Amino acid sequence: MIRFDASGTQPFLSGDAMDRAHASVLAARRTLVDGSGSGNAFLGWRDVLRSPDPDLMDRLRSDAEEIRERADILVCIGIGGSYLGARAVLDALGPYFGPGRGPEILFAGHHMSGAYVRDLLDRLEGRSVYLNVISKSGTTLEPALAFRFLRKWVEDRFEDAERRILVTTDPEHGALNVLQREKGYRKYVIPPSVGGRFSVLTPVGLLPLAAAGVDVTALFDGAVDAFHAWESEADNPAVRYAATRHLLYEAGYTTEILAVFEPRLAGIGGWWQQLFGESEGKDGKGIFPSTLQYSTDLHSLGQYVQDGRRTLMETFLVADEDDGGLTVPAWPGDEDGLNYLAGRTLSEINRKAFEGTARAHLDGLVPVMRLGMDRISEREIGQLLYFFQFSVAVSGYLLGVNPFDQPGVEAYKKEMFRLLGRP
Amino acid sequence: MIRFDASGTQPFLSGDAMDRAHASVLAARRTLVDGSGSGNAFLGWRDVLRSPDPDLMDRLRSDAEEIRERADILVCIGIGGSYLGARAVLDALGPYFGPGRGPEILFAGHHMSGAYVRDLLDRLEGRSVYLNVISKSGTTLEPALAFRFLRKWVEDRFEDAERRILVTTDPEHGALNVLQREKGYRKYVIPPSVGGRFSVLTPVGLLPLAAAGVDVTALFDGAVDAFHAWESEADNPAVRYAATRHLLYEAGYTTEILAVFEPRLAGIGGWWQQLFGESEGKDGKGIFPSTLQYSTDLHSLGQYVQDGRRTLMETFLVADEDDGGLTVPAWPGDEDGLNYLAGRTLSEINRKAFEGTARAHLDGLVPVMRLGMDRISEREIGQLLYFFQFSVAVSGYLLGVNPFDQPGVEAYKKEMFRLLGRP
Repeated sequence: MIRFDASGTQPFLSGDAMDRAHASVLAARRTLVDGSGSGNAFLGWRDVLRSPDPDLMDRLRSDAEEIRERADILVCIGIGGSYLGARAVLDALGPYFGPGRGPEILFAGHHMSGAYVRDLLDRLEGRSVYLNVISKSGTTLEPALAFRFLRKWVEDRFEDAERRILVTTDPEHGALNVLQREKGYRKYVIPPSVGGRFSVLTPVGLLPLAAAGVDVTALFDGAVDAFHAWESEADNPAVRYAATRHLLYEAGYTTEILAVFEPRLAGIGGWWQQLFGESEGKDGKGIFPSTLQYSTDLHSLGQYVQDGRRTLMETFLVADEDDGGLTVPAWPGDEDGLNYLAGRTLSEINRKAFEGTARAHLDGLVPVMRLGMDRISEREIGQLLYFFQFSVAVSGYLLGVNPFDQPGVEAYKKEMFRLLGRP
Repeated sequence: MIRFDASGTQPFLSGDAMDRAHASVLAARRTLVDGSGSGNAFLGWRDVLRSPDPDLMDRLRSDAEEIRERADILVCIGIGGSYLGARAVLDALGPYFGPGRGPEILFAGHHMSGAYVRDLLDRLEGRSVYLNVISKSGTTLEPALAFRFLRKWVEDRFEDAERRILVTTDPEHGALNVLQREKGYRKYVIPPSVGGRFSVLTPVGLLPLAAAGVDVTALFDGAVDAFHAWESEADNPAVRYAATRHLLYEAGYTTEILAVFEPRLAGIGGWWQQLFGESEGKDGKGIFPSTLQYSTDLHSLGQYVQDGRRTLMETFLVADEDDGGLTVPAWPGDEDGLNYLAGRTLSEINRKAFEGTARAHLDGLVPVMRLGMDRISEREIGQLLYFFQFSVAVSGYLLGVNPFDQPGVEAYKKEMFRLLGRP
């Protein structure tokens, strides 16, 4: 189970800060668990874990098997929460250099670069392609435009185009339902009570992941385990993470670094940035979330983290086990002076880099939190996803915002549609 | 030439702020141009543009040609400034989905993940591989360890291993020179007066880029053009960028977002984060740099940018021309309601997204700057690299720090080596 260690924040919080905050932390958790807070129409991410749908898993498994048998490439069309979760889990579990355990998964509709769409279509040429278009409304501009290009491309090339397009959308409403009914596309439902950034454990994330060969049952079960473990226990790691970072925020630490030492966890950081930034960044408030990948970024923003403005807190996300299994070879001449490390594993050395960094940043007056997991596996990634979801909800209530809306996202759309002359 | 537009910052600065800062801005620029400031032993990045070395370009061209003819994969081993520049330019100019114009370029030695090295070695199996190891001292832990694995791998597989290893290092000192003399590796020099984050236009960046098929002459010439254009002109875009962001910093805008609308510019953002974060983040000061990729991140941190804490400034880096050339297809049923966009290019629509976003963020009280370039080409990327280098030097002097050192980077190393028990 995910472990949380806040000992590296104690020098920065007054001795009784946590005690004084105890009642409000309990109240924030209670607000979430009771479903009595703002945005409480969007707690479906908890319901899917409380009452899993076995039929859904069967359907996912069967469709994923077909995609894995018939497709070279699955293009997932979606933006924000409709792609960050799948990408995060794929990155975390996949090999660094393909091929993975299923068809190649490519993403589209998450921006509007013409060069990207052109290069993507070149890449698809001559391959067996499936599409999964993921959008509640079907009218969000970025994925809707990408789907226009890709649907045409698939229809021009495959007689069974209808079989190759799967939609993940609202149960009833929206443009994709109109098309789906007309064309007979297979359809998966995004529960209306689940917001985009909380949707990774619904078909939004599960279908692409299953198609890619991820054991989605283990992923989902990991989240279910975490749900039950923390549901009755008021003092749990997710609540403590929320409470600690909130106290640090109130003490003037307004930017949070999520730092990983295993680069394939950086995608989890991208997903975490959306989850926390979009849930908390409103009403002129919120911790600014930023993900760094160490040790590479220790030779980049590391200087700032060590010596820049003292408004940073840092959360290390680290797995105990790195399955590389490689040991450092000895060099006859020892020209680089590293023979003292010969025979040790990179995993062990990387662990020392983590511990040394945490110590150095603490000495540099950065409050340090640690999130530990035993290994990077489906089950533990599932726990981690729920850990952050549960945490951010508590954290939002502590901050006094609705953690489930995103009113600011409309602002750019409004201006853009005005400039585009939308009728 | 790079264009800078600060009109979106005016509502946030008092009317005469720039006038009052005029003298100190001129003095900061003068300090740089005269070479009279702190860190003035590290101005070699200007010298290489002032007096280009034609022999170097000939050597680069010839070695790159050999690598392109003989290698399937070139592995570049380096960390921080020894890889971020090459990666940034490669990302900006390369296609989104390979193959590019030369061998595949892979990176190593920028972290210590055992799983990464294992997957990398699997990926190399059966291919013709060259190595370029890039390190001033040859003893920085991350690249030195990667070189141990990769050198052994190459020596075990190729009789001409010595020919396949090129070192980029200090003119005389360090572990790589010892090995190079013993083995006869080809060698490129990192001028001692050029710091890592300023080294992209030396062999550190130029050799991998030339091998990848980038027109490094055009890239370099672009930077030379910018050097001469701004050398005599005190009021130039790079100085204005430095001055504007400094005034905003003094007014309480302590985090800068570099936002791109073309995802392949995100690598430039990563390079920019190191350049600015490492140059300015010291003595408890400095703007915190963060790169976002729009429109995808508008559905992530966009909420925070629009409505979160009002301590953000935003710099848009946008190219006028996107060579996708794709026009939106019409749909018979217009189910998504986007037929009003049929026949328009994605480039045009993406441009409106940029303009709409800039307007929305300005309305949300985010000071907005714009960096414009005509297109994403070698010459203009070269200008842009020098633009940021020149700017950050001026900016560092304005802030009152040495823009060329990075004392904080030693802190984690010291703790790590202690934990590793280095003799």
